[in-house]
Amino acid sequence: MDNHLRPLTVLGGSLNKNVLVKVKWNREYRGVLDGYDQHMNLVIKNAEEVISDKSNGVFPTVVVRGDVVVYISPSEVI
Amino acid sequence: MDNHLRPLTVLGGSLNKNVLVKVKWNREYRGVLDGYDQHMNLVIKNAEEVISDKSNGVFPTVVVRGDVVVYISPSEVI
Amino acid sequence: MDNHLRPLTVLGGSLNKNVLVKVKWNREYRGVLDGYDQHMNLVIKNAEEVISDKSNGVFPTVVVRGDVVVYISPSEVI
Amino acid sequence: MDNHLRPLTVLGGSLNKNVLVKVKWNREYRGVLDGYDQHMNLVIKNAEEVISDKSNGVFPTVVVRGDVVVYISPSEVI
Amino acid sequence: MDNHLRPLTVLGGSLNKNVLVKVKWNREYRGVLDGYDQHMNLVIKNAEEVISDKSNGVFPTVVVRGDVVVYISPSEVI
Amino acid sequence: MDNHLRPLTVLGGSLNKNVLVKVKWNREYRGVLDGYDQHMNLVIKNAEEVISDKSNGVFPTVVVRGDVVVYISPSEVI
Amino acid sequence: MDNHLRPLTVLGGSLNKNVLVKVKWNREYRGVLDGYDQHMNLVIKNAEEVISDKSNGVFPTVVVRGDVVVYISPSEVI
Repeated sequence: MDNHLRPLTVLGGSLNKNVLVKVKWNREYRGVLDGYDQHMNLVIKNAEEVISDKSNGVFPTVVVRGDVVVYISPSEVI
Repeated sequence: MDNHLRPLTVLGGSLNKNVLVKVKWNREYRGVLDGYDQHMNLVIKNAEEVISDKSNGVFPTVVVRGDVVVYISPSEVI
Repeated sequence: MDNHLRPLTVLGGSLNKNVLVKVKWNREYRGVLDGYDQHMNLVIKNAEEVISDKSNGVFPTVVVRGDVVVYISPSEVI
Repeated sequence: MDNHLRPLTVLGGSLNKNVLVKVKWNREYRGVLDGYDQHMNLVIKNAEEVISDKSNGVFPTVVVRGDVVVYISPSEVI
Repeated sequence: MDNHLRPLTVLGGSLNKNVLVKVKWNREYRGVLDGYDQHMNLVIKNAEEVISDKSNGVFPTVVVRGDVVVYISPSEVI
Repeated sequence: MDNHLRPLTVLGGSLNKNVLVKVKWNREYRGVLDGYDQHMNLVIKNAEEVISDKSNGVFPTVVVRGDVVVYISPSEVI
Repeated sequence: MDNHLRPLTVLGGSLNKNVLVKVKWNREYRGVLDGYDQHMNLVIKNAEEVISDKSNGVFPTVVVRGDVVVYISPSEVI
C-alpha cells in the first residue's frame, strides 16, 4: 500500500538489539533478538525471564512460540 | 462488493495518527500507528501502556500481535 | 447451493445501518456499520461501547477484530 | 466416501425451519435459519436469545459467528 | 504410510451406529452417527444430551461443531 | 533437513503399541495406538480413560481430536 | 531477509542435545531433543516431566504437540 513500517520489518531492524517480549500469563523475556520467523516465533539470547515482575534467571538461548506472544518492544535502553 | 470501507483500509488511513488499541486482559496501548499487516499485527510508536485503567509507562516502539487485539480506534483527540 | 442468505451478504445489506455487535467478555458496540471483510473484522462509526450493560462512551470509529465477535444484529431501531 | 449426511447438508435442509443454536457461555438462539456458510457462520431470523435458560428478547436478524457455535439442532417443534 | 486406521475412516465405519461424543464443558451426546466431515463436525440422530452426567433430553438431530469435540467413541453397546 | 525423527514418524512407529495420551483438563487415555493423521487426531483401542488420576473405564475404541492433545508417549511398559 | 537465526534452525542445532521445553499449565519437559516439525511438535527422549516445579517421572520418549509449547531452551547444562 503505502510506505509504512510492517511489523516483521520492525523485528528485522531489532536483530542483535535488546528487546522486551511480553507473553501470556504475566511472563516476559528481556534479551537480544537473534531471530524470528513469519509466525513471530522468536529466538532470544541472554534472555532474562521475568514472571509477575520477579526475575527467574537467564537463558543463554530461548525459542518463544509466536502464539504466546502479546507484544515485542525493541528498546534502546532496558 | 460495494464501496464500503474495509477494516485494513481504515488502518491505512490511520497511519501516523493517534490510535487506541485495546487488547485482551484489560490492556490498552495509546500511541501513533506506524505500521500494520494483514493479521492486524500493529506497530505503535510512543505507546502508553494502560492496564486496568492505570498508566504503566511509555514504549518508544511496540509491536502488538494481532491475535491479542480486541479493537483499534483511530482518534482525532485522545 | 440454494438461494439462502449468506452471512456476509447480510453484513453487506447492513452497511450504513445501525448494528449491535456483541463481542466476548460482555462487551458490545452499537453504531453504524461502515465496513467489514471476510474475517468479520468490522468498522463501526459512532460506536457506543457497552460493558456489562453500562455505557462506556462513544468512539467516532472503531475497528473490531472478527475473532472476538460473538454476533452481529442489524436493527431497524436500537 | 459413502452416502452419509454431511453437516453442511443438514444445515441446507434446515433453511427456513426452526433451529436451536447453542453457543459458548450458556447462550442459545432459537429462530428460523436463514443462511449459513462453510465456517458455520449462521443467519437466524426472529432469534430469541436465551442466556442461562432465561429469555433475553428477540432479534429480527442475527448473524452468529461459527467460531462460537457449539451445536445446531433443527427441530420440528420448539 | 502403512495400513493403519485413519481417524476419519473410523468415523466412516461408525455411520448408522451408536457413538458417544464428548465435547468441552462436561457435555456429551449419545446417539447414532449420521454424518461427519473432515473438520470432525458431526451429525448425530436421536442424540441424548448429558451435562455433568445428567440427561438433558434428546435431540432428533444435532450438528456438533468439530472444534468443541474432545473425543468420539463408537460403541457396540451403550 | 538432517536425519532427525519427525513427530509423526514416532507415531507411525508406535502403531499397535501401548501409548499414553495426555489431553487437556487432566484427562489421559492409555491403550493401543491404532491410527493417527497429520492433525494428530488419534485412534486408540482398549483405551482406559483416566481423569485426575482415577480410572473412568475402558473404551473399545476412541477417536481423540488432535486439538486437545498435550502429549503422546509410546511406552514399552505401562 | 538478512542472515539471522530462524527459530526452526535453532531447533535443528539442538538435536541430540538437552533442552528444556516449557508448556502451558506450568508443565515442563527436560530431555534430549530427538525431532521436531514445522508446527514445533517435538520429540523428546528421556524426558523428565516437571509439574509446578515437582518432578513427575521420566518418559523414555514423548511427543509434545507444538500448540501447547510456550518456549524451548537448548541448554549446555541442565
